[in-house]
Amino acid sequence: VPQRFIDRLDRILKARDSLVCVGLDPDPALFPKPIRALPARRRLDRFLDGVVDATAPHAAAFKMQLATYLAYGEVGIRTLSRLTRRIGSTRLRILDLKANDIPNIVRFYRDAAFREMGFDAITLTPWLGWETLEPFRTDARHGVFVVAHSSNPGAVDFQEIPTPRGPLWLAVIGETFSDAFRLARASLGNRVPILVPGVGAQGGSLATAVREGVDADGRALLVSASRSVLYASSGKDWKSAAGQEAARLRTQINQLRSGLRTG
Amino acid sequence: VPQRFIDRLDRILKARDSLVCVGLDPDPALFPKPIRALPARRRLDRFLDGVVDATAPHAAAFKMQLATYLAYGEVGIRTLSRLTRRIGSTRLRILDLKANDIPNIVRFYRDAAFREMGFDAITLTPWLGWETLEPFRTDARHGVFVVAHSSNPGAVDFQEIPTPRGPLWLAVIGETFSDAFRLARASLGNRVPILVPGVGAQGGSLATAVREGVDADGRALLVSASRSVLYASSGKDWKSAAGQEAARLRTQINQLRSGLRTG
Repeated sequence: VPQRFIDRLDRILKARDSLVCVGLDPDPALFPKPIRALPARRRLDRFLDGVVDATAPHAAAFKMQLATYLAYGEVGIRTLSRLTRRIGSTRLRILDLKANDIPNIVRFYRDAAFREMGFDAITLTPWLGWETLEPFRTDARHGVFVVAHSSNPGAVDFQEIPTPRGPLWLAVIGETFSDAFRLARASLGNRVPILVPGVGAQGGSLATAVREGVDADGRALLVSASRSVLYASSGKDWKSAAGQEAARLRTQINQLRSGLRTG
Repeated sequence: VPQRFIDRLDRILKARDSLVCVGLDPDPALFPKPIRALPARRRLDRFLDGVVDATAPHAAAFKMQLATYLAYGEVGIRTLSRLTRRIGSTRLRILDLKANDIPNIVRFYRDAAFREMGFDAITLTPWLGWETLEPFRTDARHGVFVVAHSSNPGAVDFQEIPTPRGPLWLAVIGETFSDAFRLARASLGNRVPILVPGVGAQGGSLATAVREGVDADGRALLVSASRSVLYASSGKDWKSAAGQEAARLRTQINQLRSGLRTG
């Protein structure tokens, strides 16, 4: 019997005792020196495999930005399919493409992500309306994360526009504005997962996100870090540095939620 | 000297005497019978090449939905690169991916579309804020189309949310609400192009779009049709039927704007 996505996520967070999501966003300009010394056609795979191996012991999920693979053309897409298989089903594999389109088109993104490339979940944005969600309604095995509020300065341009129902981003998750994570969690209830990007190189308050974002079991939250993990060192210790940074983040998060746990 | 995108678009619309943009969105479920009779690995290329050959005499641009190619995995991305080269620079090639992300990620989409796959322009949505536009500011040779208002029912969910500056979609192009194309054109001025999707299978008023959307020269407008052209016939006349539908749309648009032309 196939598991519901929401149950599978919970089971993985519990089994791994980690809320860490490693953002596998390869940026050739930031590759460590030993990777740059390789022939060009080897760099992408060697770098990604190294990061996955070093960080998997500390991670519950991996998130890939479609853009950073698409820049490699067909090679990048082949790499995505290979990576999801390599990571396997003991971690969640999330395709970050911020899809937004009419249902007739979104269902192609769905098939590309889940069937063709082997992901467990993808990200969506709401600009085209709730219709964007339609192709996923009958598929409980896979997940979608809707980007209600992003962590960049431009978030104020649209997401925070005042509306009769409060700022627009909260209209996305159905609540009125005050402190974000507490209200988001209150609005979503138990088990419904929140994906927090932008912790690490982009900044953002980890403590608030964890304390107010987890559900009653101290789970249902994924904290994503990309550059701070992937490019922790540019020297020959790049793999161990990435692993250490993922481990550090995991410990920090677990300490923050240890006071909150019920069990 | 490389041409500015806006000048190149104008030159192409004038040279082809057409505002037609053919949406090359392959949907295997709708492929004509002669294509379905082919071995699976031949269907995509044969179908697309047939449509391009049949419609190019009547088209100024081709627009490809990334989703419909990504569903084919790496093969789809290879096909996109091949198609842009095959179409060549006498028509505009637009990648419809509705990208929205932080600048650091959007620049990978930019490189993927323009450098890796050979497109002339891409589509963006504004959910992540104006930052999404940043990576394009220094590149006048390529174009971006920002999706202010879409043609699907879900457009009301966010795009039409009232704000202190009028409905949200018009805040995107900087005006207050009334009749859309007239105000969009008034707001954008001459030469800045408008891309109109959803004419054809999706419905929408072609007459209003053309009469009120063109600039003072009767250009700066692209009218995109996909399913109504690509799947005009499912029989052995599928190529000629696609060509005839593109020709019919071009003639209809040219008749609508003939009364408006200054020259």
